[in-house]
Amino acid sequence: MSSSDFGNVRALTFDMFGTTFDWWTGMSDQIADLLSEKAVPVDAGELASRWREQFFVGLERVRTGQRDWANLDVIHAEGLVQVLHDLGLSEVPDNERQELVRAWHRLPAWADVPEGVERLRRRFTICALSNGGFAQITNLVKNAGLRFDCVLGADISRHYKPDIEIYRSAAELLDVAPEEVMMVAAHGWDLDGARAAGFRTAYVARPREYGPQRTGENPAHVHCDLFVRGFGELADALG
Amino acid sequence: MSSSDFGNVRALTFDMFGTTFDWWTGMSDQIADLLSEKAVPVDAGELASRWREQFFVGLERVRTGQRDWANLDVIHAEGLVQVLHDLGLSEVPDNERQELVRAWHRLPAWADVPEGVERLRRRFTICALSNGGFAQITNLVKNAGLRFDCVLGADISRHYKPDIEIYRSAAELLDVAPEEVMMVAAHGWDLDGARAAGFRTAYVARPREYGPQRTGENPAHVHCDLFVRGFGELADALG
Repeated sequence: MSSSDFGNVRALTFDMFGTTFDWWTGMSDQIADLLSEKAVPVDAGELASRWREQFFVGLERVRTGQRDWANLDVIHAEGLVQVLHDLGLSEVPDNERQELVRAWHRLPAWADVPEGVERLRRRFTICALSNGGFAQITNLVKNAGLRFDCVLGADISRHYKPDIEIYRSAAELLDVAPEEVMMVAAHGWDLDGARAAGFRTAYVARPREYGPQRTGENPAHVHCDLFVRGFGELADALG
Repeated sequence: MSSSDFGNVRALTFDMFGTTFDWWTGMSDQIADLLSEKAVPVDAGELASRWREQFFVGLERVRTGQRDWANLDVIHAEGLVQVLHDLGLSEVPDNERQELVRAWHRLPAWADVPEGVERLRRRFTICALSNGGFAQITNLVKNAGLRFDCVLGADISRHYKPDIEIYRSAAELLDVAPEEVMMVAAHGWDLDGARAAGFRTAYVARPREYGPQRTGENPAHVHCDLFVRGFGELADALG
């Protein structure tokens, strides 16, 4: 598919955790800092990875109606209880738990992101579209010094990706037809949801998403309109 | 009231039309450009002022439940029908009408705004909170090259200012208590709504809002925590 096939795309919506931000490195570093101060013995990367797994468990409970709507900060706080229990670290006090949840508001962007965002915003409306909350995503983007034109969190539509409603709500708020929006994500499940809503799809391979020791998502079976290895390559592909 | 009284303010919400943007000059210029091409004889400033009056009529109909929710682009389009009729300009064709409505997406900021915004965003989360739609405000801010941390339009809460719900929804999405937010506006009615929601209030005097020939809002009876003459003075006052 050539770039001319994307001539009617007017807005790009970006996934945040894993696609724009290197959550594993950012969380591992912050977990190690916070817990070493308290002399808690911990494999920070292992804690970060397990916590991310709990995020999916929590989301699924909301998506399937097993629990009422809760914002990602709440899902993270609940997931942390489970992970600390599983790792035998239940002694970590409330204060540190709150700081750990808050660490998800301050993460490093992948190296190709700042320049890619600047290039892409010259031509498109660029919008963060995340399962994080509006305040969380505002903080993430601000702390990293990135410049998105606007941000949307899951608390705007009260639906988590890949529910079709969150993508439809984004297109409506951006005042564009679904086919005029391209979802940019490092996860096939996110692109599947976006495609079901009528969006175009760009897959960004992030093989290090789960750290250097763990295998990232296998892109072999991902369906997408565009496959790239970073935001610079995305800007190239979109002309 | 000294700046120390605002020590717990974490976020600033900004009105757009009149406070951040000089809609009268921007609309007068665009109306003159668009209609002179079509050789329509028009007092562009008069049309802009009358159109703004219709905006309040349209909002009031939504706020009082006389009509269902409609976004500001729709309110603007309907108001234009009335204004063109009143001015004997009903011959203006649909294409030009659509372009005129769209002109509200591209307005000049007041001269003190760009630097003021940069100073204020170093210390606060700064958020646009407008009766415009999310897409419209995203366009306005992007076209003017301003950098807000996030934008909220009335279509997020489906309430127009000064309904208390739009301010409460903004505080909730920003994840701050109402008293941690300061509404920045050039209109007493907006600050009254914000205060009712528990916000702090900053009044920005914009005596030229309705152009050089018309009297702007009289600030004598406005209630506010802070009275300033521009965004630079606001940044000074907030330390």
